[in-house]
Amino acid sequence: MLATLMYGPGDVRIENVPDSRIKNSTDALVRITASCICGSDLHPYHSMDAAGGPARMGHEFIGIVEAVGADVVTVKQGDLVVSPFAVSDNVCEICRENLQTSCLHHEANFWDGISDEGGQAEAIRVPLADGTLVKLPVAAESALIPSLLTLSDVFGTGYHAAVAGGVTEGSTVTVIGDGAVGLLAVLSAKRLGAERIILMGRHQSRTDLGREFGATDVVSARGEEGIALVRELTGGHGTHAVLEAVGHMPAYEQALGVVRRGGVISRVGVPQYEVAPIGFGSLFRHNIRLAGGPAPVRAYIEELMPDILEGRIEPGKVFDATTDLAGVPAGYRDMDERTSLKVLVTP
Amino acid sequence: MLATLMYGPGDVRIENVPDSRIKNSTDALVRITASCICGSDLHPYHSMDAAGGPARMGHEFIGIVEAVGADVVTVKQGDLVVSPFAVSDNVCEICRENLQTSCLHHEANFWDGISDEGGQAEAIRVPLADGTLVKLPVAAESALIPSLLTLSDVFGTGYHAAVAGGVTEGSTVTVIGDGAVGLLAVLSAKRLGAERIILMGRHQSRTDLGREFGATDVVSARGEEGIALVRELTGGHGTHAVLEAVGHMPAYEQALGVVRRGGVISRVGVPQYEVAPIGFGSLFRHNIRLAGGPAPVRAYIEELMPDILEGRIEPGKVFDATTDLAGVPAGYRDMDERTSLKVLVTP
Repeated sequence: MLATLMYGPGDVRIENVPDSRIKNSTDALVRITASCICGSDLHPYHSMDAAGGPARMGHEFIGIVEAVGADVVTVKQGDLVVSPFAVSDNVCEICRENLQTSCLHHEANFWDGISDEGGQAEAIRVPLADGTLVKLPVAAESALIPSLLTLSDVFGTGYHAAVAGGVTEGSTVTVIGDGAVGLLAVLSAKRLGAERIILMGRHQSRTDLGREFGATDVVSARGEEGIALVRELTGGHGTHAVLEAVGHMPAYEQALGVVRRGGVISRVGVPQYEVAPIGFGSLFRHNIRLAGGPAPVRAYIEELMPDILEGRIEPGKVFDATTDLAGVPAGYRDMDERTSLKVLVTP
Repeated sequence: MLATLMYGPGDVRIENVPDSRIKNSTDALVRITASCICGSDLHPYHSMDAAGGPARMGHEFIGIVEAVGADVVTVKQGDLVVSPFAVSDNVCEICRENLQTSCLHHEANFWDGISDEGGQAEAIRVPLADGTLVKLPVAAESALIPSLLTLSDVFGTGYHAAVAGGVTEGSTVTVIGDGAVGLLAVLSAKRLGAERIILMGRHQSRTDLGREFGATDVVSARGEEGIALVRELTGGHGTHAVLEAVGHMPAYEQALGVVRRGGVISRVGVPQYEVAPIGFGSLFRHNIRLAGGPAPVRAYIEELMPDILEGRIEPGKVFDATTDLAGVPAGYRDMDERTSLKVLVTP
């Protein structure tokens, strides 16, 4: 079967690999019908250590169950399913606290941590299928597929940013980053009742979509200038919640600059730093809280799906390009060059 | 009048200073009847820059109102009052969100930031008296005074640690530090319904009081050994909340080691560091949250006072020594040498 392999920075190839197949009684084999490229795939695209050998890519997909192991009970052959970006058993005590990305099961992992499988491929073996997969009540050709595909990562991640940021009726919110996650954090903040949503981003086609998703203000400046503008928009105070969907240190510093006294910085951009200011002069003096992490998107799928099925929201608008597997390397390049926001892949 | 001045590390003196007096129409003049020395007073006792000139000391007190400015309406001459360690107007939009330690009023400040007044003295001018002071329904000689005095800082601070840590019915909690704040964080966690309260501290007389306040377990080891013991007590998982009442980097590292996936590190020990690990390998991977800061004790006084007045709790047990003003320098020394837990001062 065909799959996507990354050999090193900028080096993405489509190659034949051994067919995925059932190994354990809790596995499902899924033929992938829709997948995509993630903003986080660009981190290894920039800095992967080629010495580690090629990596299988892709952690977001929808597909049709082709076979299941003997112990799988929640999905069956022929079901259309969506997978979160992390495999989990959904029954351990951490999963029951709705933190499936920290599942205690020994097979639990991010797809990016499972070396012999990937979502940008023709098929995939899904461990812990009962805990991981969620059945979709539509056909594989449904016009809703792009939006349902966002439940595998970017929508759930944007939603997690807003939930972990404590966004609620009347909140003021700043979203840092106009990638797919940032834009869906806007949509999520709107859904949770935020009154003011300031989107910090520099790409007008993206911030225009952000306005469509519910942003009340757009600030394209960054650094001190951007901070000053957000403060100006908020009576000098900053916003209750800051949803940080980038992961680089300047985004964290920007978050410190625009958060209100007593507010929350909710991070879903994977931090590209380990140490950062959190002492008296940054977080402590004004009781600024820090929240977020890898989104337990599994916890949100059932909650968010009805809004998509009933047409109230269309998170799939973050896809602005579609390709087959052969076009995936070009898709990485386009996303890296910011000529595509997010690329849908139909294997 | 007599007041406490710190001239440099280890150099505390009682001296005559100009009498405190009303300056603004929103001031009250309070004759102090009970005050105390705080664990945080030991930070300048170790490292104060003597070049800054002597500093007036003390930020916790109870006293009798001697006079009020023309605009003061909530307290009057003869009232017994308690003051939080921070002055606030209690009506600005940040105070209304119960974050009085970040009050927006230009006169708002920590007592430690008001250079010409201090609580370890015979009298004090209280700015923003209506917002700051709370009337006590007892006499200045009441046996409840030590417990009521803890409302000015250490009890409210321990309580803030627990509230900001999200402690609730059934929570598992680790408290790091067996000073007065740590011990009252134990009492607070118990009051909020925590099921398991592990106190990390090395002084048996203190941890014994911690057990009396509700600690279910005591771990005297620190660092990796202490972390391993807490993990062992919690099925390997650590606790939902970690209340960090020390402020030094090893305490933060210990907190990272004992917090459960998805849990909260709530800091009330003033950080003696600015940068610290918060990236993928520390907070982010498992959605560990960070909370806390200077406690808005003003927000908690009315909530906590009935438990003291009705004898359900006795936070004043943290005082294990009493002195007059002349004995304050020795009180600092005793607290620094850990021969006293907390010293009550009756001017």
